[in-house]
Amino acid sequence: MDAALTPRAKDYSQWYLDVISSAQLADYSPVKGSMVLRPHGYAIWDAMRTDLDRRFKETGHVNAYFPLFIPVSFLSKEAEHVEGFAKECAVVTHHRLRAAVGGGVEPDPASKLEEPLVVRPTSETIIWHMYGQWIQSWRDLPILINQWANVVRWEMKTRPFLRTAEFLWQEGHTAHASRDEAVEEARRMLGVYSDFAREFLAIPVIPGVKSASERFAGAVDTYTIEALMQNGWALQAGTSHFLGQNFAKAFDVTFQDADGSRSHVWATSWGVSTRLVGAVIMVHSDDTGLVLPPTVAPIQVVVTPIWKSDAEKESTLAFARKVKDALHPAVRVVLDERDGVKPGAKYFEWERKGVPLRLEIGPRDVANNAVFAASRTGGKKFGMPFDGLLAAVQQKLADIQTELYDRALARRTESTHRVSSYDELKERIEAGGLFLVPWHDDADWEARIKEETRATIRCYPIEGQDEAAGKTCFASGRPATHMAIFARAY
Amino acid sequence: MDAALTPRAKDYSQWYLDVISSAQLADYSPVKGSMVLRPHGYAIWDAMRTDLDRRFKETGHVNAYFPLFIPVSFLSKEAEHVEGFAKECAVVTHHRLRAAVGGGVEPDPASKLEEPLVVRPTSETIIWHMYGQWIQSWRDLPILINQWANVVRWEMKTRPFLRTAEFLWQEGHTAHASRDEAVEEARRMLGVYSDFAREFLAIPVIPGVKSASERFAGAVDTYTIEALMQNGWALQAGTSHFLGQNFAKAFDVTFQDADGSRSHVWATSWGVSTRLVGAVIMVHSDDTGLVLPPTVAPIQVVVTPIWKSDAEKESTLAFARKVKDALHPAVRVVLDERDGVKPGAKYFEWERKGVPLRLEIGPRDVANNAVFAASRTGGKKFGMPFDGLLAAVQQKLADIQTELYDRALARRTESTHRVSSYDELKERIEAGGLFLVPWHDDADWEARIKEETRATIRCYPIEGQDEAAGKTCFASGRPATHMAIFARAY
Repeated sequence: MDAALTPRAKDYSQWYLDVISSAQLADYSPVKGSMVLRPHGYAIWDAMRTDLDRRFKETGHVNAYFPLFIPVSFLSKEAEHVEGFAKECAVVTHHRLRAAVGGGVEPDPASKLEEPLVVRPTSETIIWHMYGQWIQSWRDLPILINQWANVVRWEMKTRPFLRTAEFLWQEGHTAHASRDEAVEEARRMLGVYSDFAREFLAIPVIPGVKSASERFAGAVDTYTIEALMQNGWALQAGTSHFLGQNFAKAFDVTFQDADGSRSHVWATSWGVSTRLVGAVIMVHSDDTGLVLPPTVAPIQVVVTPIWKSDAEKESTLAFARKVKDALHPAVRVVLDERDGVKPGAKYFEWERKGVPLRLEIGPRDVANNAVFAASRTGGKKFGMPFDGLLAAVQQKLADIQTELYDRALARRTESTHRVSSYDELKERIEAGGLFLVPWHDDADWEARIKEETRATIRCYPIEGQDEAAGKTCFASGRPATHMAIFARAY
Repeated sequence: MDAALTPRAKDYSQWYLDVISSAQLADYSPVKGSMVLRPHGYAIWDAMRTDLDRRFKETGHVNAYFPLFIPVSFLSKEAEHVEGFAKECAVVTHHRLRAAVGGGVEPDPASKLEEPLVVRPTSETIIWHMYGQWIQSWRDLPILINQWANVVRWEMKTRPFLRTAEFLWQEGHTAHASRDEAVEEARRMLGVYSDFAREFLAIPVIPGVKSASERFAGAVDTYTIEALMQNGWALQAGTSHFLGQNFAKAFDVTFQDADGSRSHVWATSWGVSTRLVGAVIMVHSDDTGLVLPPTVAPIQVVVTPIWKSDAEKESTLAFARKVKDALHPAVRVVLDERDGVKPGAKYFEWERKGVPLRLEIGPRDVANNAVFAASRTGGKKFGMPFDGLLAAVQQKLADIQTELYDRALARRTESTHRVSSYDELKERIEAGGLFLVPWHDDADWEARIKEETRATIRCYPIEGQDEAAGKTCFASGRPATHMAIFARAY
């Protein structure tokens, strides 16, 4: 794709698709709703996975793997769970193909399963079935397990990374002896996600609690981190659920405490997914294409030698290789040696792929024993001497990371509004942004606002709830129970 | 499980299940044929994954992710592929559940898919469909992609790790401009697998070529690494396929060469799976339980403090923590501080879990500023001074790794037999082992031998084929075309 990207201001949705396509992050697949994660897109997810996995292990978690298939009867065991969750999913009904009359293959009717299987939309049910076999006494607790897996939720309207039938994610499932310990775990993982978003994705997020109507089906409390996209819409970037004893009761999982008494086990679950790749794209990229924080960038630095004559080619290439060797492997660096591709075209390509830093090397740079650097975040190009290059490049990458975070934070600050009435929200919602308001918890009002404005309660932010005291609800005028953030969301 | 394991000599199959269960590696799931990888078992696979991923990247490969679901029509495109492969698989026919009369849920008939989807048994078809869109010219080649994924092949008779309906694996799928380059790639990956098995799993493997009847469905040549289990059976531990142009032709994938001509693309695919965990168990473990090479051991060292009085407890625990701190994080070490569990019971538990090295610490050791060490591979316990402990432990772990490899190699050498007639094979096959024989390639004879002895051709070893020259087939008496290894296999 050589055409220019659709500008954000013209058509934000199309811009998003253009960024993905021009950076070769993902592609449509022949299976409706499923996407292909191309190497450049998968590598971003892989970087996230590696960093998250470390954070999970540092907080005492271990990985395990549970079956992809769940017996359909399991989904009916937790009433709210099946009601709110498990309807749109892929159902396996046969286990064999046979040759079809007229060619091709078809499901063999003789292979029909006695009980259909569902491809996991999430794994609470099968995991709690297993926990029922593993947990007898308080000595078996806590269980702190995480799973890296693919899940499927049948979706008709899909958008790459943000909403697809199949996606990759991690799901933590923990079991505890007490309510307090489970709540603490759910909140600890919310903190892990917030830190990760800020430090690794350069995305400032708002940690908060979901209103009852936005809760995970089967949860007592759903914690969330909410991020702001450049079009003023919010995106739920990760959730952590305190599940109470709901799944333990549904699957009859009890433990004997040290005093001999038996109680149901307390639970949490928490997850983030490849949706985070979509968040990174939407928060940082620009009209030229993908912009990536150096932490997640599969390629952090590209070295582009420039030559005209053969003699120049030899010396610039030699110096370019020296530059690459000086950076590798501490920095993820690629040397673009391609012949027959003009420098401008190379720059264009690597910019679209979101490489944070480009080091240009022409004959003059060779003579100066230096490189000429361009940051993907813009600004004037600048020289960098070869001596001390690695440290200087690492510092520059750290600066770019900070710059991206600061920009995103400034944008969020500018886009966080306070409105004094529902009418004002209705007027301003079209322009986007996060609306922080005093709110009286009320499902009917919440539904009405969603219906009339397409804005939903993103969360009750953890910080600043005190402010609600003594205020009245911006919509109903009743005494405020919470400070709430309303926004349109993906 | 506190009972002793079934000894290998008594019932090898039951011993294998006992090792898995007593080490908590895996558990049966409520879905027939699918198993749960428990944390201790998953961590072994994760260590393999990390090391393999590094090897793949060092040989120029990148990761990507393709959809779980494959349209059923795709499987019919490569004739041999569907014939030999794609019959027993999970078929998705519906995408929604509804409340069933009488409670529970059932597939909603209104959600029946127009075309059924198959849960991938392997991904050649969908990947070559995508390659058809990505490959236009020689500049797009080679494509060197690997995928880490779950796959499903419906199996009625399952055995944990070795044969399950769902399993985890990696599948490499590469596309090349020439036959030679593709053959070279298939053989390179065979080499990567051989090195990995030897260096990381401490398993000596025989790299070889499969006979036509044992080839992957759709391959021109299948390369394999074959390992010997302790009961004298062989296990195919990894395969690498030269696919010729079969999939490129089935999906019409051509490229324009530098000279303007168009040709079909050449292909390879290669994979190893969680089956390797089964191989590690079967090659190294003993009647006490799991034995693991230190490279794959989730816990390499366990520190077990021993005390009688409270005063002893304080000093041994303090010293034990110092020992742990001296080893962490260079060594994966666990300190077993549990109170109320006797030292003998602790030893027993960690031995069953395959921890390579145990460091016991009693009051006398504290006084000596030393630990008392026991290797999981046996031998007398020995003292290790605290000074220089990390280096000494790392050396000891390396020694254990070598010891396990040497044992496995010696066992294989002892169990590799030459027989001079088919009658001799029939007599000796029951006792197990690898039978290296001159062989005249003949599918009928091969089928007869399999029928009569349950032995199959594991491979034509890459090394030593010269030896066939001038020899006659051990079975048919005709001129030998190959040196072949026959064995019973998992």
